[in-house]
Amino acid sequence: MLHFELLASEGLARRARLTLNHGVVDTPQFMPVGTYGSVKGVLPSALEAMGAQIILGNTFHLWLRPGTDVIQRFSGLHRFEGWSGSMLTDSGGFQVWSLGAMRKISEEGVRFASPVNGDKLLLTPEISMQIQRVLNSDVVMQFDECTPYETEGRITNNDEARASMELSLRWARRCIAEFESLGNPNALFGIVQGGMFEGLREESLAQLVELDLPGYAIGGVSVGEPKEDMRRIVAHTPHRLPAHKPRYLMGVGTPEDLVEGVASGVDLFDCVMPTRNARNGHLFTRFGDLRLRNARHKDDPHPIDETCRCHACASGFSRAYLHHLDRCGEMLAPMLTSIHNLHFYLTLMREMREAIEQQRFAAWRAQFQADRARGI
Amino acid sequence: MLHFELLASEGLARRARLTLNHGVVDTPQFMPVGTYGSVKGVLPSALEAMGAQIILGNTFHLWLRPGTDVIQRFSGLHRFEGWSGSMLTDSGGFQVWSLGAMRKISEEGVRFASPVNGDKLLLTPEISMQIQRVLNSDVVMQFDECTPYETEGRITNNDEARASMELSLRWARRCIAEFESLGNPNALFGIVQGGMFEGLREESLAQLVELDLPGYAIGGVSVGEPKEDMRRIVAHTPHRLPAHKPRYLMGVGTPEDLVEGVASGVDLFDCVMPTRNARNGHLFTRFGDLRLRNARHKDDPHPIDETCRCHACASGFSRAYLHHLDRCGEMLAPMLTSIHNLHFYLTLMREMREAIEQQRFAAWRAQFQADRARGI
Repeated sequence: MLHFELLASEGLARRARLTLNHGVVDTPQFMPVGTYGSVKGVLPSALEAMGAQIILGNTFHLWLRPGTDVIQRFSGLHRFEGWSGSMLTDSGGFQVWSLGAMRKISEEGVRFASPVNGDKLLLTPEISMQIQRVLNSDVVMQFDECTPYETEGRITNNDEARASMELSLRWARRCIAEFESLGNPNALFGIVQGGMFEGLREESLAQLVELDLPGYAIGGVSVGEPKEDMRRIVAHTPHRLPAHKPRYLMGVGTPEDLVEGVASGVDLFDCVMPTRNARNGHLFTRFGDLRLRNARHKDDPHPIDETCRCHACASGFSRAYLHHLDRCGEMLAPMLTSIHNLHFYLTLMREMREAIEQQRFAAWRAQFQADRARGI
Repeated sequence: MLHFELLASEGLARRARLTLNHGVVDTPQFMPVGTYGSVKGVLPSALEAMGAQIILGNTFHLWLRPGTDVIQRFSGLHRFEGWSGSMLTDSGGFQVWSLGAMRKISEEGVRFASPVNGDKLLLTPEISMQIQRVLNSDVVMQFDECTPYETEGRITNNDEARASMELSLRWARRCIAEFESLGNPNALFGIVQGGMFEGLREESLAQLVELDLPGYAIGGVSVGEPKEDMRRIVAHTPHRLPAHKPRYLMGVGTPEDLVEGVASGVDLFDCVMPTRNARNGHLFTRFGDLRLRNARHKDDPHPIDETCRCHACASGFSRAYLHHLDRCGEMLAPMLTSIHNLHFYLTLMREMREAIEQQRFAAWRAQFQADRARGI
């Protein structure tokens, strides 16, 4: 169901090969997000062409639409989406958390009103496992409570973060029991919580490690906290996780965040940023970010980045053309910019894998930082 | 600038090879519409892959955004869009006509307020030629007045249609003068008008033929008239145009319209229908039309049409998946359905070319009608 082979390391950074039920994932790796069963604006064939090996699906969204009855008919998400690579699904925990005042958390699970049609719904560790069994994702995430950075308008305190972390641990045990009773042939990952408190993170981690899951994630970051808190937790937790198992930093982040994550020992990342920012005209490049909506691009004949080999840049689509398409609301703008941003993220990961293999990750990272600061 | 070689014919239907400044166009041919310099939702590489040889750009829209100053920097629309095939631009006449009460027509041209920013603008035969010179399209359309089907709430009468047709003829002469004085190396087409009156159409045609333009279009159809009127004009006019020059039926139409057009001697077509309908979940197939939003497709594992070889059908994307994507507002839905519909239109044209070459167009047409009536 999961095989993880460490191939090389440099400092805390690791290069590994993760084998899942639908194939191999070379790590460090980035997972494009396909919330509703589609990476927004990108054909699966284009994802393959740019080297994506694993994509993410959102249990919460897919449960509401199209619903498990439909996906069951396709024996899971892979065939429904036409994606032959690997797939990871989140547990729905983060999405119900995002509903804010519209949801009520108890020991049993989370009750909330469907944002699609107002139906009263209950999501529990067991139900999350049942849905993910139908989705048949290669990596199943435990149902957890994502500890918020703020509670009632102030920073969440240690007691509150502890209660939340302990609830997630009890839910982890219920997830394992249900996952096993369903005979799920895939891999279940646990999620370290504990808010911004290192001590709580260590307790969460220790208890999850006792459960001997095949992989672990770091959750509860990228939830509105200041960048320095995020960096502090990312520096703290990954290398404390078992070295022989994959480590996944959830919902992170910018190109810099990915590089720091890899330097801290993270293997897997996911984030909506490359596609969402693309739709908003925010382009990532090796030499810094480019705001496509800036009027200075109006008649610029250059591609987004001349050194980039994505379909948009290699075909020579100019900044002027992309600026124009975006201004006119033409779909081709987000189509091309999403390809560019995802290609950039996946290229970063590939370069980091090669650098670690060749024991030159430290130098690569310094060059990355210098290039990004150069500006484009 | 234009070479037109008749290769075969069957009845009034013709198979020809049209050579323009950017390459060969096999006719009968359909031109996907790229209003703002992009065929909505379709990558230029995908258009090439499905065999598109010529696309259409809208002078009116491109004049407003991005403006001729930007396109001038790219020496025309081809390099701006990254399209290496052929291109035809309309004159802007139809679009200003579509503005309705917002425009005022005089002998000089049309005054109107920009729908983008309210600027007061004037479009004349000369200005249309100047803009199209910058766009550097392979086929330039004369600036004309599209005679409306209705005037002041009743059907346009013969006198009104005559006045409009005669204005278009005077504008045709001004277009030729300006086109020549600009040294445009491309091909200028005249447009037959005359409303729903065969006599006026014949007068318009006769006078345009005297002007000895390299190609002719039939305008003023698909302007809200009943289907039988459209069919009557399409049956009347094409074969009266010079046999050794290309004939273009503007803004038409459904798959049936294309087949009837070819049977009546038309060589070129354009229409927004395949892409616009795709975005509305209206899919064209050999076996009739399919409404993707119909709930019966909710869990249908079949592709749109199992006999279709477009990227969407050949990759096996199911009706259930497309239905789901459409329901969730995912961009991938119009991306895949636009590919399907355009592929279907282009395949129809290819099949008609082959049928005419092999002198079996009549049989092909009967089979087409039977297949379309079968239902999917």
